[in-house]
Amino acid sequence: MTTSPGRDRPEPPADTHEELMEAGYEALVEHGYAGLSMRKIAEHSEKSHSLLQHYYGTKDGVVLAVLEYLIDGYLADVQTASVESPVEQLRSDLERSLFGPSDEASERFWAFQTALFELRLEARENDAIREQFARGEARVADRFAESVRDGVAAGAFREVDPERVALVLRDIVDTARLRRVVMDEREAPERALWAFETFVLPGLRTEA
Amino acid sequence: MTTSPGRDRPEPPADTHEELMEAGYEALVEHGYAGLSMRKIAEHSEKSHSLLQHYYGTKDGVVLAVLEYLIDGYLADVQTASVESPVEQLRSDLERSLFGPSDEASERFWAFQTALFELRLEARENDAIREQFARGEARVADRFAESVRDGVAAGAFREVDPERVALVLRDIVDTARLRRVVMDEREAPERALWAFETFVLPGLRTEA
Repeated sequence: MTTSPGRDRPEPPADTHEELMEAGYEALVEHGYAGLSMRKIAEHSEKSHSLLQHYYGTKDGVVLAVLEYLIDGYLADVQTASVESPVEQLRSDLERSLFGPSDEASERFWAFQTALFELRLEARENDAIREQFARGEARVADRFAESVRDGVAAGAFREVDPERVALVLRDIVDTARLRRVVMDEREAPERALWAFETFVLPGLRTEA
Repeated sequence: MTTSPGRDRPEPPADTHEELMEAGYEALVEHGYAGLSMRKIAEHSEKSHSLLQHYYGTKDGVVLAVLEYLIDGYLADVQTASVESPVEQLRSDLERSLFGPSDEASERFWAFQTALFELRLEARENDAIREQFARGEARVADRFAESVRDGVAAGAFREVDPERVALVLRDIVDTARLRRVVMDEREAPERALWAFETFVLPGLRTEA
């Protein structure tokens, strides 16, 4: 776990942290941000309400830590996934961002995305949550940029600005999730993948 | 003006309608949806509060009519704009969607987009506003699809599914506006135009 700036609470042992973060995630999936409480989070673990308070303070403290925990997990997973080429790498990162981890049930993934959308609305008024969102997005964009950079270095992609392409990919993921969650457009993630395959990937590849 | 389904109020004369719709637009730009009231809308016109009520009923009645008025205006403008080629047509429609009409000050355009975002949140709980949004989006997507279809017919574009491409373009506009308004990313519309020029347009064009 990377300690968040300004954190002034005792560091939980790694296994306790993991248990409480999973509980926070489950509680967000089940109750959403608005319906979340410290008690409900604790109920999803074997640990006590007071231990949860001891390590994370408030509901927002847990939520900030859960966001960081999920980003860490996402990045650890994609970094150990061994794929053959930069093209496959980029496609696999994008699919994971659009459809969730392959071992996660789709319903759960979208329930969590709905909670994230609520959180983003909350973030408009809440500096700490907004900053955590921005940090998480920046780390995912860095990951996309790295794959694009690898592709350029390997000669598979044209000389493009990897940071700018990464932001376009992040935008593609972002709009797909939002339309799926807010407008109930169930085909939005598929369309995003299609746009990537049809426009972005051919535009990135060096001429055959 | 196209009458909305279920409308059961007297139809205002065209010039009165236009004056009150402009007042509604100004009031939305100034106060946002949350701060809007019938009184504030009427104050932006020469007409009385009671006349406004007579024709549109409630604040939501005005807002629904304003959304329709703006879409009608957008479509009338883009349809009379004479451009040389389907490619220029599509680019010009997209630029207008991303940056607003060229005679509209950018500050005003973004103040209105912020009000639209608030309205979209409201739309989650409000069937009439949600349906009006969906109708407006569908009409703009139809317009994009028409340009793509023209391009295919003229041999400038490859054989693609115009409806699907239109939704991708709508998604590009949507995410750019959202990131500009919600995350205060001032460069988001420029990045969207860049993505269009760099990936979508070359992917649409027939091989030279």
